[in-house]
Amino acid sequence: MPDQIALMKAMFTAAVKQALPEHGVAANMPSQPKGRTIVIGAGKASAAMARVFEQKWKGPLEGLVVTRYGHVVPCERIEIVEAAHPVPDAAGTRAAERILQMVQGLSEDDLVVALISGGGSALLSLAVDGVTAEEKRAVNKALLASGAPIAEMNCVRKHLSRIKGGRLAAAAFPAQVHTLVISDVPGDDLAAVASGPTVADASTFAEARAIIAKYGIEVPPSVTAHLAAAKNETPKTLANTKSICIASPQQSLEAAATVAKQAGYIPIILGDAIEGEAREVGIVMAGIAMQARRFNQPVKPPCAMISGGETTVTVKGKGAGGRNVEYLLSLALKLAGAENIFGLAGDTDGIDGARDVAGAFITPDTLQKARDMGLDPWQFLANNDAHNFFEKLGTQIITGPTLTNVNDFRVVLVG
Amino acid sequence: MPDQIALMKAMFTAAVKQALPEHGVAANMPSQPKGRTIVIGAGKASAAMARVFEQKWKGPLEGLVVTRYGHVVPCERIEIVEAAHPVPDAAGTRAAERILQMVQGLSEDDLVVALISGGGSALLSLAVDGVTAEEKRAVNKALLASGAPIAEMNCVRKHLSRIKGGRLAAAAFPAQVHTLVISDVPGDDLAAVASGPTVADASTFAEARAIIAKYGIEVPPSVTAHLAAAKNETPKTLANTKSICIASPQQSLEAAATVAKQAGYIPIILGDAIEGEAREVGIVMAGIAMQARRFNQPVKPPCAMISGGETTVTVKGKGAGGRNVEYLLSLALKLAGAENIFGLAGDTDGIDGARDVAGAFITPDTLQKARDMGLDPWQFLANNDAHNFFEKLGTQIITGPTLTNVNDFRVVLVG
Repeated sequence: MPDQIALMKAMFTAAVKQALPEHGVAANMPSQPKGRTIVIGAGKASAAMARVFEQKWKGPLEGLVVTRYGHVVPCERIEIVEAAHPVPDAAGTRAAERILQMVQGLSEDDLVVALISGGGSALLSLAVDGVTAEEKRAVNKALLASGAPIAEMNCVRKHLSRIKGGRLAAAAFPAQVHTLVISDVPGDDLAAVASGPTVADASTFAEARAIIAKYGIEVPPSVTAHLAAAKNETPKTLANTKSICIASPQQSLEAAATVAKQAGYIPIILGDAIEGEAREVGIVMAGIAMQARRFNQPVKPPCAMISGGETTVTVKGKGAGGRNVEYLLSLALKLAGAENIFGLAGDTDGIDGARDVAGAFITPDTLQKARDMGLDPWQFLANNDAHNFFEKLGTQIITGPTLTNVNDFRVVLVG
Repeated sequence: MPDQIALMKAMFTAAVKQALPEHGVAANMPSQPKGRTIVIGAGKASAAMARVFEQKWKGPLEGLVVTRYGHVVPCERIEIVEAAHPVPDAAGTRAAERILQMVQGLSEDDLVVALISGGGSALLSLAVDGVTAEEKRAVNKALLASGAPIAEMNCVRKHLSRIKGGRLAAAAFPAQVHTLVISDVPGDDLAAVASGPTVADASTFAEARAIIAKYGIEVPPSVTAHLAAAKNETPKTLANTKSICIASPQQSLEAAATVAKQAGYIPIILGDAIEGEAREVGIVMAGIAMQARRFNQPVKPPCAMISGGETTVTVKGKGAGGRNVEYLLSLALKLAGAENIFGLAGDTDGIDGARDVAGAFITPDTLQKARDMGLDPWQFLANNDAHNFFEKLGTQIITGPTLTNVNDFRVVLVG
């Protein structure tokens, strides 16, 4: 039995390792320019990316990267500033203004390196003239409540920003812009990660207005006026830019799949962007695992069912929970001790919700062990208290903050 | 585009057809006995099974079958009575008493044919002496609230019943007992469908007591006393009995898979017992479908992702909904118009929740069509009003009651 646990841990480790900046930044360094090198960036993993970059970079450089409070990695040559996420604050706005200024007035001999990761959209928030930060935030809130798909929300955001939707790269013209991205968005659309400050944007002011109308979103008059004026469209093409996705959920799942395969398990990747309420995703995954057990479908065991993406937790209890451990506890309850089925779930950033715990694992005797200890698994689930449940069982996965993020990693092993 | 719709409809039709009694009863008729033939049965599909049986049966027969109110199929030689489901009523208890009496005093030359289908547990409810029907119902309610797996709930039920857990077959001894089952339970355990009145039961009084203790279930003193006395254990082996599963969720999914394969789609069966909140299952299935589109995983399109089982709906709105249409509307919203992905979901019994509608289908332009008509899909979902949504779009699946039930059928076609 320890074999399965060791395998699942090795798969998680491989998934996280694949997502670390060390790997992807070093492998995708730009050529030395004739002129200046300016490193900018925004996102939860961007300080860690900056550190790798400055260690590998032989020439001179200057730079400014904004990351989330607590995600600082000390750098020697690149300035790191902290700002608020997910709701922008003044520190983020100041950083965005400085970054926009830094990339202006460059020549074609200069190089801008953009280090972009999830969370960068909030950290690099800069409203267009005539619209206040508060008004922009109100529009954002209304968009989130509208049910509009992320692509449509981004279209509106990009048309209210001085930096998003490729505007930062346009400002840097004619300098070369080399963008490295750690993706945390479904579909890995590089124009979507941090709202793509250095990536060309196909959407238009007319579309932004249509989206506002379609969802009946109430916006301040300043926003209506700005979208109607339709001045300064987002760049549809960007010369001298190159964007590389150095880490993504799918790449991490593939790395874990390779580990499973080497151990004799058929890997089956169900999705790199599985969403939904965590406990319900656990129930569905239990159903799929049981199908493999009973009917050798979709594949014959031994197999490893792998998935990524971000589930959600509707908090009703007062416990210490996270989406990975809540998913996992629900999975265990639905499997009800089914023989030879094991599971692990963890957040690749090392922090699953409420605690500095990445996730946990389950074995066929998880529920029995809990009940032998006098614990009621249903009660822990009802109280959103899965971290305490797995702490008592001694089956937590603790990595510490990994300073990268390609969302969640889940595996169900069917032996 | 109509091709995909036609294919999905053909798959659903094949799934339902596979589950009809015509198919399985006729193929599994017992041999003519020397003595009497007594047909008994219980379940939502059991009257329809009885009709096929009496049409095919050459010899004399007598019999009594209990079905749910509204599920009567007129029979000429077998008496059909109606009773309440899911909460038992006096009509069910009377029918159970009569059925138990009918199978007693038989010889080994006699044949008892048991026609069992989902819902039979409530329809064939008969408490042991000393425990009232109300007390048994209270225990059942507490079991449902305990979170105990179905196998453990059945263990307790079988030890409080005069008919469940093989007791009916034991009463018929030494007659031959030929049981035909339409399964609606995850795992197709024939001892679980209608709590297995003619199937040997491995569970014990001691286990029933342990389950009561494990979940801290409060039971009336009469129940405690009966379980402690442990008189009349369920039969662990049953001579002269034969049980055949003539229809199951998996068999229906396989039938649909064959149709998909013939049309050039790779069928992939994800589970015959997928459960969870309907709208969340829709989100997960959208994630799996997108994985096929983007990464050719778990299989390369064109593929048909097939699943069965019963999802649940937590009703918060006041609309007309059902678990299949709610799943489907949520799937459409999560897919957000993704190209070349189609879906259909329907209840194989022809009635998806609130209406005489089996289900519905979606196409890539479902949301756009709805918005063009001025409908807000999110609002229909929030109001649990998916039947009205699909009625307005004209994409309902209407079969009328099929008088069989192997739970839900869902397919997502990825082209």
